Amino acid sequence: MKPKKEFNIGLIGLGTIGSGVWKVLTQNKRLLEERTGVVLKLRKVCDRDTTRMDKLKIPRELFTPKFEEILKDPEIDIVVELIGGIEPAGTILMEAISRGKHVVTANKALLAERGAVLFLAAKAKGVSIGFEAAVAGGIPILKSIREGFIANRILEIYGIINGTSNFILTEMSQRGGEFGQVLKQAQKEGYAEKDPSFDVKGIDASQKLAILISLCYGVEPPKEGIYVEGIDRITPLDIEFAKKLGYVIKLLASSKDHAGAVEARVHPTMIPLHHPLADVHGVFNAVFLKGDAVGETMFMGRGAGMMPTASAVVSDIAMIASGHSPSLPVMRPATIQPMEDLVTPYYLRFSVVDKPGVLARIAKILGDLDISISHVHQQERAVGAKVPIVVMTHEAKEENVQKAIAKIDSLETVLDKTMLIRVERFIPPPTGGVRG
Amino acid sequence: MKPKKEFNIGLIGLGTIGSGVWKVLTQNKRLLEERTGVVLKLRKVCDRDTTRMDKLKIPRELFTPKFEEILKDPEIDIVVELIGGIEPAGTILMEAISRGKHVVTANKALLAERGAVLFLAAKAKGVSIGFEAAVAGGIPILKSIREGFIANRILEIYGIINGTSNFILTEMSQRGGEFGQVLKQAQKEGYAEKDPSFDVKGIDASQKLAILISLCYGVEPPKEGIYVEGIDRITPLDIEFAKKLGYVIKLLASSKDHAGAVEARVHPTMIPLHHPLADVHGVFNAVFLKGDAVGETMFMGRGAGMMPTASAVVSDIAMIASGHSPSLPVMRPATIQPMEDLVTPYYLRFSVVDKPGVLARIAKILGDLDISISHVHQQERAVGAKVPIVVMTHEAKEENVQKAIAKIDSLETVLDKTMLIRVERFIPPPTGGVRG
Repeated sequence: MKPKKEFNIGLIGLGTIGSGVWKVLTQNKRLLEERTGVVLKLRKVCDRDTTRMDKLKIPRELFTPKFEEILKDPEIDIVVELIGGIEPAGTILMEAISRGKHVVTANKALLAERGAVLFLAAKAKGVSIGFEAAVAGGIPILKSIREGFIANRILEIYGIINGTSNFILTEMSQRGGEFGQVLKQAQKEGYAEKDPSFDVKGIDASQKLAILISLCYGVEPPKEGIYVEGIDRITPLDIEFAKKLGYVIKLLASSKDHAGAVEARVHPTMIPLHHPLADVHGVFNAVFLKGDAVGETMFMGRGAGMMPTASAVVSDIAMIASGHSPSLPVMRPATIQPMEDLVTPYYLRFSVVDKPGVLARIAKILGDLDISISHVHQQERAVGAKVPIVVMTHEAKEENVQKAIAKIDSLETVLDKTMLIRVERFIPPPTGGVRG
Repeated sequence: MKPKKEFNIGLIGLGTIGSGVWKVLTQNKRLLEERTGVVLKLRKVCDRDTTRMDKLKIPRELFTPKFEEILKDPEIDIVVELIGGIEPAGTILMEAISRGKHVVTANKALLAERGAVLFLAAKAKGVSIGFEAAVAGGIPILKSIREGFIANRILEIYGIINGTSNFILTEMSQRGGEFGQVLKQAQKEGYAEKDPSFDVKGIDASQKLAILISLCYGVEPPKEGIYVEGIDRITPLDIEFAKKLGYVIKLLASSKDHAGAVEARVHPTMIPLHHPLADVHGVFNAVFLKGDAVGETMFMGRGAGMMPTASAVVSDIAMIASGHSPSLPVMRPATIQPMEDLVTPYYLRFSVVDKPGVLARIAKILGDLDISISHVHQQERAVGAKVPIVVMTHEAKEENVQKAIAKIDSLETVLDKTMLIRVERFIPPPTGGVRG
């Protein structure tokens, strides 16, 4: 038997994910060799903190304090960048590519920001760029979109792709509590960062959505145009109303193809309780998509954490090492539909003074702007007190809804800013003579 | 720009799936070229029934009545076999491989029967064999196991992979009705075949499980040793008891790795209502798996039907055409754990004469065989009447449970054969400081 081909890895960044990559490469070394026919060999590791190497018992001779040494090493076939952030990560990847090395990264921020340039550079140099770990690490969703569903026009895609937000919303739904209170608990338990805004404001999810859109529609990851709204305004009252109406509130990233322009948005969304996405709890991630041939599919798994993310990184390395990672197609710039043009049902919670005629005035403003009501819930309270009125609308245009809310919020009988949550009803799956 | 590479397809079998493949190749032609950089060209189509070609408006010049013509055509790069059954499908695939052609098939029966030989032949000839459509067509589960989870030791895998059985059990659970009655309805509506035994007796699921086991553990698809039991003995009474106890009954195919031997079984299984597999309804398929790095993941989608299956077939063609289909590793014969050694909780429903001392005698027999009871439900009825006693056991050994049932069924106070349903409790997912 001829000796197996060796594939030399340069690993930059030995934080949580980097440590996981080392563990997977070491623990499942024989398995990976059997499956790929290639020896995946860690040749150099770069991190500022050498104690991390000692903790993992990585041989000292692999250590280098300078990533330049990895980039310059002609023996290194692939550079794995796991330091995160835009710089120096961006320079590292471009430099590695320009030297003809394959690259793997979990850096969603960088891909959302510079994906188009990186993809083009990799294509020009004939090297692969692996980034499965950047979106929902434990779910091979990028591979599935690019390969498993290659024969499909992707019509719609929906993702619960921020674990922190889903953890907080799940806690609020299942155990109750105000957003701020649950956030603090999540921070204590390690489910939220000290500065949680990146997660709870929807930015993380929007970067991941940019990558999903790129692969679904063959466009450059859109740098702007994705509508982003976080979960920090959601109150226990909204969660309670949602339940009564048969919904659960999730931070949903979604995109729909409208021949030419794509819808692209991240915001708290009401999902019907019977939909499988409604059952995705805690830190789990899920992606639901609809292809023109395959129909509806859903994937669920851990979106983050040391080992699930490392699993994705090592999968990328293994597929590239064995020569089975397809290159990305040439991408057009993305055309994102303006948010004003969105048409969807809405949940609107008005905070009003409980006196006769208030609902009538609100209903008139909505009606005048072509917003038709499907359901109203008005709690009975003492006259003169502050009460919520909840309105579920039929499909309406975002532009009109925003105009209506501006008008309504200026009424003197309306006490607080109106709460708006968009509703995703999903088209019921068709049934037919499907066998097997 | 240089002209795109052409990849010539010979399609054998123009039934439901074959027609779907033609539709996908035609409708999404441009998309596939953009994504693969290859022109996927249908060069010859073989079917006994020429009216099928006319119906699809396939040009007559592509038609051939003899599959040999496709095999002999040196221009054809890939043979797509969609006629099903063992022969002549087996000969067609072997002949195509021996002529150096790639092959794609959806033929689970053939793969379960002759997979080892076909895989070896393909490897020796350096050609690819695509069979994503053979298991849960709408879910790219084989690709995910082979590629997305390549860095993982697969610890456990569970599948709802027979649409007909899941449709019948869902109907029985949600609308009620005896098995036979619901089966008839399913046949009328096109969800079950005229001869349904292949599906409802678990054979179809066991063939798919053999393929899953092969890919998860790098072994030849096991031809024997998989325990198979169908859903035809399930009664509305069992479904009702299951609900009361917090479970739903599904036809589950499962396998667990016990270092050296693997558990492999297909049978009706009680699944906790809170588990995501419990929410997989109707003809939908789902696969839940646990990898040592990635943790728990679940995939859901349509398992069968023209377009979902065609989506999988065309994905295989596209990946092979663009040179990105990895070859299978060398496989060892599978070692299947004997069913007697299974350790799991059990649901046992005894049909007894309602008189004092019956439960005590049953409990004694169970206790003597090391079967410990976690829960008993005895309905109060008129003394002397036939009543069910339901026992849930803690983990017990299959061998002992079978011995106990044999003894119990021979008691004169026991009127019918005891109903046994194995329970899958799943280990609760670990929690930890997972971010993002």
